[in-house]
Amino acid sequence: MSSILRNILKPSILKSTKPHFPISSSSTLYTSLFSSSYYSTSTTNGKMYGGLEPTKPNEKPRLVVLGSGWAGCRLIKEIDTKIYDIVCVSPRNHMVFTPLLASTCVGTLEFRSVAEPIGRIQPAISSEPGSYYFLANCSSVDAKDHVVHCETVTDGAQALEPRKFKIAYDKLVVASGAEASTFGIQGVHEHAIFLREVHHAQEIRRKLLLNLMLSDIPGVPEEEKKRLLHCVVVGGGPTGVEFSGELSDFIMKDVRQRYAHVKDYIHVTLIEANEILSSFDDRLRHYAAKQLTKSGVRLVRGIVKDVQADKIILSDDTEVPYGLLVWSTGVGPSPFVKKLEVEKSAGGRIGIDEWLRVPSVQDTYAIGDCAGFLESTGKPVLPALAQLSPSASGHDVLPYKVCDGNLLQQVAERQGKYLAKFLNRIGKAGGGHANNAENVDMGDPFVYRHLGSMATIGRYKALVDLRQSKDHPPARGFQESAGNTASQDQRYTY
Amino acid sequence: MSSILRNILKPSILKSTKPHFPISSSSTLYTSLFSSSYYSTSTTNGKMYGGLEPTKPNEKPRLVVLGSGWAGCRLIKEIDTKIYDIVCVSPRNHMVFTPLLASTCVGTLEFRSVAEPIGRIQPAISSEPGSYYFLANCSSVDAKDHVVHCETVTDGAQALEPRKFKIAYDKLVVASGAEASTFGIQGVHEHAIFLREVHHAQEIRRKLLLNLMLSDIPGVPEEEKKRLLHCVVVGGGPTGVEFSGELSDFIMKDVRQRYAHVKDYIHVTLIEANEILSSFDDRLRHYAAKQLTKSGVRLVRGIVKDVQADKIILSDDTEVPYGLLVWSTGVGPSPFVKKLEVEKSAGGRIGIDEWLRVPSVQDTYAIGDCAGFLESTGKPVLPALAQLSPSASGHDVLPYKVCDGNLLQQVAERQGKYLAKFLNRIGKAGGGHANNAENVDMGDPFVYRHLGSMATIGRYKALVDLRQSKDHPPARGFQESAGNTASQDQRYTY
Repeated sequence: MSSILRNILKPSILKSTKPHFPISSSSTLYTSLFSSSYYSTSTTNGKMYGGLEPTKPNEKPRLVVLGSGWAGCRLIKEIDTKIYDIVCVSPRNHMVFTPLLASTCVGTLEFRSVAEPIGRIQPAISSEPGSYYFLANCSSVDAKDHVVHCETVTDGAQALEPRKFKIAYDKLVVASGAEASTFGIQGVHEHAIFLREVHHAQEIRRKLLLNLMLSDIPGVPEEEKKRLLHCVVVGGGPTGVEFSGELSDFIMKDVRQRYAHVKDYIHVTLIEANEILSSFDDRLRHYAAKQLTKSGVRLVRGIVKDVQADKIILSDDTEVPYGLLVWSTGVGPSPFVKKLEVEKSAGGRIGIDEWLRVPSVQDTYAIGDCAGFLESTGKPVLPALAQLSPSASGHDVLPYKVCDGNLLQQVAERQGKYLAKFLNRIGKAGGGHANNAENVDMGDPFVYRHLGSMATIGRYKALVDLRQSKDHPPARGFQESAGNTASQDQRYTY
Repeated sequence: MSSILRNILKPSILKSTKPHFPISSSSTLYTSLFSSSYYSTSTTNGKMYGGLEPTKPNEKPRLVVLGSGWAGCRLIKEIDTKIYDIVCVSPRNHMVFTPLLASTCVGTLEFRSVAEPIGRIQPAISSEPGSYYFLANCSSVDAKDHVVHCETVTDGAQALEPRKFKIAYDKLVVASGAEASTFGIQGVHEHAIFLREVHHAQEIRRKLLLNLMLSDIPGVPEEEKKRLLHCVVVGGGPTGVEFSGELSDFIMKDVRQRYAHVKDYIHVTLIEANEILSSFDDRLRHYAAKQLTKSGVRLVRGIVKDVQADKIILSDDTEVPYGLLVWSTGVGPSPFVKKLEVEKSAGGRIGIDEWLRVPSVQDTYAIGDCAGFLESTGKPVLPALAQLSPSASGHDVLPYKVCDGNLLQQVAERQGKYLAKFLNRIGKAGGGHANNAENVDMGDPFVYRHLGSMATIGRYKALVDLRQSKDHPPARGFQESAGNTASQDQRYTY
């Protein structure tokens, strides 16, 4: 057995002396290998509940990262793998470059172009004996014993039950992100498609093409044809606006050419309770609305109260039949974060201090959409969120910024980068192992500097808002920016 | 209403005077369009059963093609759209370049590279008012009235019931292909993956990656790890051999690099009842077997009798646990072809004469895997099939060639090309409309000339067998070859 496996398998499993499947070297090409004993499928004695034991003082400390989004992946990329073994636990084995996701829905970009495998972001995860990626969800954290409990994601495709296992950590980073908000509106999960993962974009593309083809069938009633080809987007933040823009580009170019028979039936409607792109400057917002309208997107103010299989109902009881419904009204805390018994910041996020630590929980950090500064830090509760706007649903439950993917990513990415440096410094000073970092110099706290927002609106046009929000005081202490070496001036010429 | 729609919609639908969704031109950007009447979803009066009426003598004749495989697409590509309107009915809106499908399973090629949309193969289908592609299956043919009955494919994703419609044809070409054979073995459809469509390759890739990740979870018992990473291919024809070769390439290169923790557990087994690549020359076959074995593929002679969720049972009761099972034991007639009440050739194919016509059925032709020459033509029943070999199942039910995708495509492609020329000639001579081709010169009959077979075996190696089968007499009459202008000598230097 290779040394690679030695430190992850429990002694009971290590005792197994059955050979691996050997590469046949017999002189006859067709052998009946299946009669040998190691093909038997009698119930194995292997424990169904294994895991990674705590590291020993002479081993590298183990950093466990929950999640593989912007924050987690930036952290993983920058961690010094000579200091730490990294274990990433996430139901997704790649990072999604979310701002480009809308472009993949209509074929402007290939799906593969917007996803980067974790093993390529940090090669040590594929090759180092103590570093791993696990396709799993974290179900609970045992902070006292420094252990996370996980459950495999089997994708519904296996003859397998989900398998439970636990991982001992020296440092834990929670970067598990947020969840799409539905505001409790009936039918959203069943009938609408979000736009947060590659499979969402695939489903949108598939449904769009399917509807185009179905509407071309002879004898389809006019009403039905209109319904099938009515694309409704709920939520006027950057995601909703970008997707609407891509869709109208697609209609202008591809549909007119390739689906000429039905080109006059396809339409895009963008529903927003308030104003689109509310975090942007007034003039930019107005320009965006004008451009979208010009390219055929209908902008409608409305509040959704119910979603059915083929129509949505607005608060004034208007029925809006649709063939494709994309939901992008922002994010809220995930069930996992809700369940965590730690102090929360406003909005239900995991409360963190200025060094991104979860106070009162040793060796635990939180970054990205799942984390928010505690009031005691004196920092804005939601560092990334320049303004708050009511959601398309009109409900008043959102301390979360609605839809502003753009801004969220800036914060997530910079928090990831900051925390990697922070942990590298601690590790280098000998504080990498559990309960061992008390006397290490903390360095400067995290400071967020807003660099501006951008949203594409189709037809090779985009808005760029470079205002420095008044919510964010000039940077001090540790500075972090997208163009790290750029001068203040350069930044604003972006 | 555009003229495009005029000739496909029944009068009752044409009377509809409701406006299309207009692009809003109101001065205010946010309008409440949904209150207008055309958003109502009251039950429509449109007939659920519409269709395309027979063409009139002053209109272009309508050629209906069932299927979008090699044969159908080659035909569609070469048909003169100034003479005919083309209507293609198929559950698949693209042609799959099947010989490259195996390469997409492991990422050597992108899925998009092996699929070509029908609308790009024949642009008239997207743009000409009378030409269409319909995402549907043909359920029955009414030869007397020159009508096919169809049912839409809704992909399970719509709130829609499948919609039925009918299409009147002047000429009908059945090119609906064959179906993967399972020889009645239990569990094949439920647990094995075929390798005939893009979604099959996607499923194989997905499952392969999932199993790689699941096997890396800490605490997975050795037996289970071996099972998850055991890839079994049943059927030793070109498809099975090519897929095994690609898979072993993937293991040699990518798995060793990217899944270093489990690289010693992954193995490929190829099960064949007889010999692999039985249609190839002895020496080539032996070479292939040696190369495959060398790259780690285990070749096993065996007959499968039962397929379960995590293991297959061979006829000698050996149990073979697997994580991924790919089934490629060849093809047989589809239920649609079985149901057609026409004279069949041996093997249950649609019987055709030397001009690829279905005798006794006016204006009907059959090409590709669904068609076979009638005994009365004096031609070999299966023109493409140089030799017959028993299948991996050991059942003795196959007049169909097992797995020889390579050969089948040669026949299909050339039949499509021949028939397009044939129909173009008839159309030009004024015989395009239904029951109108009796006095037109038929031209030379179809002659198949076997140009050889090729199969890749991984590691940039391939077999090429250029023998001219003794089953196929030297070409005479109308000649058709892959390189149409190539001389006899040039052909054999390929």
